[in-house]
Amino acid sequence: MTHLTVSVEYGLHCLLWLAGPTGPPVSSRDLADLQGISPSFVAKIFPKLEKAGIVRASEGMRGGYLLAKAPEKISILEVVDAIEGNKPLYDCQEIRGRCAVFADRPPKWATEGVCAIHAVILRAEKAMRDSLASQSLADVMQVLERKAPPEFSNEIRDWLDDRIQSRGRKPDKA
Amino acid sequence: MTHLTVSVEYGLHCLLWLAGPTGPPVSSRDLADLQGISPSFVAKIFPKLEKAGIVRASEGMRGGYLLAKAPEKISILEVVDAIEGNKPLYDCQEIRGRCAVFADRPPKWATEGVCAIHAVILRAEKAMRDSLASQSLADVMQVLERKAPPEFSNEIRDWLDDRIQSRGRKPDKA
Repeated sequence: MTHLTVSVEYGLHCLLWLAGPTGPPVSSRDLADLQGISPSFVAKIFPKLEKAGIVRASEGMRGGYLLAKAPEKISILEVVDAIEGNKPLYDCQEIRGRCAVFADRPPKWATEGVCAIHAVILRAEKAMRDSLASQSLADVMQVLERKAPPEFSNEIRDWLDDRIQSRGRKPDKA
Repeated sequence: MTHLTVSVEYGLHCLLWLAGPTGPPVSSRDLADLQGISPSFVAKIFPKLEKAGIVRASEGMRGGYLLAKAPEKISILEVVDAIEGNKPLYDCQEIRGRCAVFADRPPKWATEGVCAIHAVILRAEKAMRDSLASQSLADVMQVLERKAPPEFSNEIRDWLDDRIQSRGRKPDKA
């Protein structure tokens, strides 16, 4: 399993659909079917995004999820942390205190502060997180908007409208 | 399991002992016992470091491992890649091509180039790797040398000499 899992991939892709021109809210089921990915998997991601204040749910026949704030205000790091938690790259076992010459009584100089090797990894982790924090959902949207032809967003809107119509008048949960 | 595992931790700690003032080569068994870590675990790391040209083995009664080049020339990234392989942070499933409106025939614009979300993660991964590449084994040594009292390296040398003496005249493999 990679450090950033398929949950992050699915979550970010789903948010991109919600970041488009404001339309009706979209259910996690429709987001999953639109992208050909597992609905039960996607259903588990959205409560995490909601708890982190990235999306909000609306109820009713056209119920579903909406972004809770502008895509410019949603960093990729925020989404990653909402879905994965702030997972460390490395789990320091503090082996520096076990050196045989210390005979189970490591001196203070050997164990105070952060282990020098752990510090190296923490700097690399900070560089990674700073990069994710500097990129927003809106930045990714801009790349996609340059690639997709103008009619694409209408096709998506039509597909989502068809789904809502086909549900008839039954209320639908997110 | 974290992205950078305990093998990286053990490998880096072992290399620090070899990066000290030139003395006899040290066997992976002695390096493990000196640090209170699993000898069989450490024995599996050294062939990877040797293959990557980071250490070299010397045979004989005082046989063991030596750094294959100066610690200034050994980057932390090099050690991580030797031990873990160049593991990606994220494994893009290319879900962009599965969009329902494409009906299994995604247009070229939708799948050409790197997925915009994957590109975000690749930038973060590059930031992490650049940070690891910019830090050398010598940099970590300098931090440790500032912390340890002058007698510490003699205590280590004595401990290692005792180990070699206690083996008698039997040849010892790394």
